[in-house]
Amino acid sequence: MANIPAPVQNLIDAFSMLPGIGPRTASRLTFFLLKNNTDIAQKLSTALMNLKTETALCKECFNITLAGHDLCAICENDQRDQHELCVVETPMDVIVLEQSGGYFGKYHVLHGLLSPIEGINPEDIRLAPLFERVATGDYKEVIIATNPSMEGDATALYIRQRLEPYHVRITRLARGLPSGGELEYADQNTLLRALSGRQEM
Amino acid sequence: MANIPAPVQNLIDAFSMLPGIGPRTASRLTFFLLKNNTDIAQKLSTALMNLKTETALCKECFNITLAGHDLCAICENDQRDQHELCVVETPMDVIVLEQSGGYFGKYHVLHGLLSPIEGINPEDIRLAPLFERVATGDYKEVIIATNPSMEGDATALYIRQRLEPYHVRITRLARGLPSGGELEYADQNTLLRALSGRQEM
Repeated sequence: MANIPAPVQNLIDAFSMLPGIGPRTASRLTFFLLKNNTDIAQKLSTALMNLKTETALCKECFNITLAGHDLCAICENDQRDQHELCVVETPMDVIVLEQSGGYFGKYHVLHGLLSPIEGINPEDIRLAPLFERVATGDYKEVIIATNPSMEGDATALYIRQRLEPYHVRITRLARGLPSGGELEYADQNTLLRALSGRQEM
Repeated sequence: MANIPAPVQNLIDAFSMLPGIGPRTASRLTFFLLKNNTDIAQKLSTALMNLKTETALCKECFNITLAGHDLCAICENDQRDQHELCVVETPMDVIVLEQSGGYFGKYHVLHGLLSPIEGINPEDIRLAPLFERVATGDYKEVIIATNPSMEGDATALYIRQRLEPYHVRITRLARGLPSGGELEYADQNTLLRALSGRQEM
């Protein structure tokens, strides 16, 4: 690492702190920015600076919203189905579901999944406000859209148990073969789920 | 893309301008920074801001150096072999060669390679100062370490022709099988080069 000027090394180090970016990629990005004469570095710097100061969490669903706003754009939108609630792990999951174009209700962002191994308990994620929201009786269906993983399943199960008293319909996103995939490459678990969840046609 | 707050979308857009980072990775990085409570975003922002204001090009070899310095750390170091000159395309190539620990001479950074297709001609890269440096007679050997690509080879050939009058030893980095690679996976060109460049053992 000899002979790299400090401002260059600092940026390489900063990029390396991001997930999935190793030292080689970090160097490549840094030298790309050094070579580049447009103001990408400036734009990125400003956007990073504004990221946290200009955003806040929606007080209802805990999705990301603009700083100074109590509610996010989705919670404020009275055109959305007010009786459907989709529970997701992260704000990014909201974006992915929005981009799918298949969901028009409201969201609840947990900001984490239950994981006894990592010491993440119900009080560490936004579960209590979820139960409060459902307790109002406003929702007819709660769609649990946590990841199809151990933690996602455990969290879904916990939510279902806790919501039992409220007589609300509780569903979970379907498991099966991904569209465009091939049977040959499906893992055993996915195949078993696709079989047990098979549907009339 | 509906319902993403502007500060979040701005950072996704800025990340997407970097090479090798698509919209999905850009979103992932952005939400990682949003979730992360340490000051990675702040560090990255500051490092980006300082990148260009605090760096300059070495007046001798055109490597990156600290702003306000005429020479880079390598050119300033009189412990380095003053008679060997290694010609590379980018400042990152300097770092890679330094990390190899196998070169102790000086460098010359071209900041590009000849490419008639892309309209990059000899006057567009730092070739003239290279010829001036060699014309001083200070160097006994010029190692051409441009990439083993069409443009790298064309640039190397051009440099060799232009340096012919100076009676300096001109070499090019060896071509052959990469260490740890397997014959089975070597492309035809690499194999041909490895054959024609075979050495006594």
